[in-house]
Amino acid sequence: MHLDLNCDMGESFGAYQIGDDEGVMPHITSANVACGFHGGDPAVMRRTLRLARANGVAVGAHPGFQDLAGFGRRDLRVTPQEAEDLVLYQVGALEAMARAEGVRLAHVKPHGALYNMAAREEPLAEAIARAIRAFDPSLVLFALAGSRLQRAAEAVGVRVAPEGFADRSYEPDGSLTPRSKPDALIHDAQLVVQRAVRMAREGLVSASDGRDIPIRIRTLCVHGDTPGAATLARELHAGLERAGVIVRAPGATG
Amino acid sequence: MHLDLNCDMGESFGAYQIGDDEGVMPHITSANVACGFHGGDPAVMRRTLRLARANGVAVGAHPGFQDLAGFGRRDLRVTPQEAEDLVLYQVGALEAMARAEGVRLAHVKPHGALYNMAAREEPLAEAIARAIRAFDPSLVLFALAGSRLQRAAEAVGVRVAPEGFADRSYEPDGSLTPRSKPDALIHDAQLVVQRAVRMAREGLVSASDGRDIPIRIRTLCVHGDTPGAATLARELHAGLERAGVIVRAPGATG
Amino acid sequence: MHLDLNCDMGESFGAYQIGDDEGVMPHITSANVACGFHGGDPAVMRRTLRLARANGVAVGAHPGFQDLAGFGRRDLRVTPQEAEDLVLYQVGALEAMARAEGVRLAHVKPHGALYNMAAREEPLAEAIARAIRAFDPSLVLFALAGSRLQRAAEAVGVRVAPEGFADRSYEPDGSLTPRSKPDALIHDAQLVVQRAVRMAREGLVSASDGRDIPIRIRTLCVHGDTPGAATLARELHAGLERAGVIVRAPGATG
Amino acid sequence: MHLDLNCDMGESFGAYQIGDDEGVMPHITSANVACGFHGGDPAVMRRTLRLARANGVAVGAHPGFQDLAGFGRRDLRVTPQEAEDLVLYQVGALEAMARAEGVRLAHVKPHGALYNMAAREEPLAEAIARAIRAFDPSLVLFALAGSRLQRAAEAVGVRVAPEGFADRSYEPDGSLTPRSKPDALIHDAQLVVQRAVRMAREGLVSASDGRDIPIRIRTLCVHGDTPGAATLARELHAGLERAGVIVRAPGATG
Repeated sequence: MHLDLNCDMGESFGAYQIGDDEGVMPHITSANVACGFHGGDPAVMRRTLRLARANGVAVGAHPGFQDLAGFGRRDLRVTPQEAEDLVLYQVGALEAMARAEGVRLAHVKPHGALYNMAAREEPLAEAIARAIRAFDPSLVLFALAGSRLQRAAEAVGVRVAPEGFADRSYEPDGSLTPRSKPDALIHDAQLVVQRAVRMAREGLVSASDGRDIPIRIRTLCVHGDTPGAATLARELHAGLERAGVIVRAPGATG
Repeated sequence: MHLDLNCDMGESFGAYQIGDDEGVMPHITSANVACGFHGGDPAVMRRTLRLARANGVAVGAHPGFQDLAGFGRRDLRVTPQEAEDLVLYQVGALEAMARAEGVRLAHVKPHGALYNMAAREEPLAEAIARAIRAFDPSLVLFALAGSRLQRAAEAVGVRVAPEGFADRSYEPDGSLTPRSKPDALIHDAQLVVQRAVRMAREGLVSASDGRDIPIRIRTLCVHGDTPGAATLARELHAGLERAGVIVRAPGATG
Repeated sequence: MHLDLNCDMGESFGAYQIGDDEGVMPHITSANVACGFHGGDPAVMRRTLRLARANGVAVGAHPGFQDLAGFGRRDLRVTPQEAEDLVLYQVGALEAMARAEGVRLAHVKPHGALYNMAAREEPLAEAIARAIRAFDPSLVLFALAGSRLQRAAEAVGVRVAPEGFADRSYEPDGSLTPRSKPDALIHDAQLVVQRAVRMAREGLVSASDGRDIPIRIRTLCVHGDTPGAATLARELHAGLERAGVIVRAPGATG
Repeated sequence: MHLDLNCDMGESFGAYQIGDDEGVMPHITSANVACGFHGGDPAVMRRTLRLARANGVAVGAHPGFQDLAGFGRRDLRVTPQEAEDLVLYQVGALEAMARAEGVRLAHVKPHGALYNMAAREEPLAEAIARAIRAFDPSLVLFALAGSRLQRAAEAVGVRVAPEGFADRSYEPDGSLTPRSKPDALIHDAQLVVQRAVRMAREGLVSASDGRDIPIRIRTLCVHGDTPGAATLARELHAGLERAGVIVRAPGATG
């Protein structure tokens, strides 16, 4: 029974700091490094790669829409070809920085609106899968468990780590409760840990109507921009291990 | 006796077209492909890679300052570390697109103000050389013949193709006559071809004071944004071959 | 019987030229000047203001999404507040340049995806109307005839010049035929002129099913980025005048 | 004896927060509001305008280079015309937001590298003065006391508030000690207050060689991005008033 803890990292930009990368990094096993479009810049990317390396954390690319003003969180009507190209471009940019730092890329997790749109829209999902396969078929794609993105990637032979969110409410159909609804976010740390353990051990999560739904995940998202992110990451890591779950990156061995 | 003809390519951006890439490409042997900072975008990069591949033209990265508004032609006071990182980032981005198109990168030519500043300033020159060595030591750097950039790269073992400009006037010290001076540009196509042949065969160019100065070049720049660029490129190629100069990219064999 | 001929202008950016501003300007009566977000930059804005002034053409702001890579043509999911602020910002920026050139702004026409989204979505439409009213209630808004944008503006007392498109096909419900469909664009210049005259004189346009539908317009869009735009603009102007339609800007007198 | 306390404000961008605007605002008399090029965005501008209005603080524009990645602190080789246009554009954009919030602009303070370059270079200084005069000749320009920018503005009739820096060391020639040198920054709050009082009351500041040099200032810069900025601003305000200096904006009455 293995689970990966991933967190978005390196989203600072120039003079702007965001997130508590140094506090969170020691407690996660995969870092999704922003690639300069929705956040991050070449200097931040290098710094983040070094921080991940120093903590033995696996590194992945975290490509997003070219919308720094909206932090990549606003839906942007790109074509599938545009999506494919922007993923390739950003993964390649990060890979170059990683190569210079002696770090090997292990995964790709699309960011924000790109992640959400690709979870729903097959043409975008296929485009992202094509980009990964063309760049390096050994990269693992982090995709919302059960989404079109997961299926599109698997269909073309890209390995997927299905992703869960222990601090988000799920709808009975397995989708995430929209943030606009009350109770979409779960703030109680103990409950978050419990839900994580249950997802990992039993493959179940309690949905918004109270009933259990099946969920098969290989990685769990830790939100790095919430207050107390480092503490929650530490508690998740410890709680999972206490429950007998081995916390490690998808590609890690041992 | 070999000479390469290189030209900046893929500098269009979104809805904006610039340069006559399709007209020039058949006549050159190395394409310097813009990487999205001073010009170019992921879609343009892919299109340009395909065009180069179809014409059997070697492809290199053409990284520049993140100054689209100034087309990368305005001096920007970056630190050497910033220069190193922005070169790495852009070369990596292009390499990913190239990999997806089955194209191998052969060289790097810095763009505009970055090229000129690195020709004069040793710390910037060293930073660019470090970036190339870290990314792929087999890449050839295109640098102004006799510049600090050439020397810094050679000092760390990066191969250099010294570059000449047949349509620019040279000062007696071997530097280019600033564009602000009259006669900085040579418009007569026949004279441009003659100067190119002489650089290639005799290693000499007539400076602005009329005296010959030595110049050792391996690649010659063709300006793609001047009217008649395609015609001039064709005439240069033909004129060099007529004079017994083999026109081919630095890494090409046969 | 009056009609205005408007055209998007000043969408060049830095080293990039787009459109035939100098060819089209003499034949139109209103210039929609890009404000630096989807196209245009401060230097281009100044140049365009001078060109409009020299041709006696009324000037308006042409604000768009901050998406230069997509030329403002891709839907971007902004909030109404974001839309209000980006319109205000851009109109103010242009007004400052206009003030320095002794030009008075007369109208506002949203660009591309912002125009289309506001035509359909009431909250965006209201936001744009609020921005105009707050900045200068004497400005005329150019909005798709019959759209939500027209109604929202009129509801808060902003004057509207309903806009028609003589080179686009209309659906029976009065909306424009999507560009993705065949026959969405009308290429025959003579037919375009005929449709323009009919819209102006009879308030009718033949829809895609062949039936006439009523349309009440005060301004007609001339597309500046199509080949032959200048010629078409000249023919439209002449054809309308021949048919007894006075071609002038909404705010013009005499 | 009057002195203004000014601080850069509204430099946050999208999801990125920078500075302690809410902590500092109550203690200053002039807010220099970023205009979206080096920092700030339309939403931040509106929020900052409201904060200034609620605190009775005078508002000015804080235009900078279009270099968000470098926070406008890197020298960028613009032409004087480019400088003039980018100031006009940004001042106009802010003025529109201010108009919508019922706030009148009172001053302009160039940001970072633009401020420093214009302090040294007459053509840039003149360009900025021209932009202000063209937009609104009643605006006061904040310029380094004794700089070329001050002189260029006064020469064309633009009112200047000469600016001093109580937390920066001065060279014997009246220029600021470069930040690269040790002791360039003064960290002792009490000493900073003393220097401010002495500048305001005696028109003197102790230079890096220990000797007093004359300095005539009307406004004092408070750095908002240093830790404890709000406390220092409060102490400066209180210390100046205790010493009999009336703290108020240049245009304020009463």
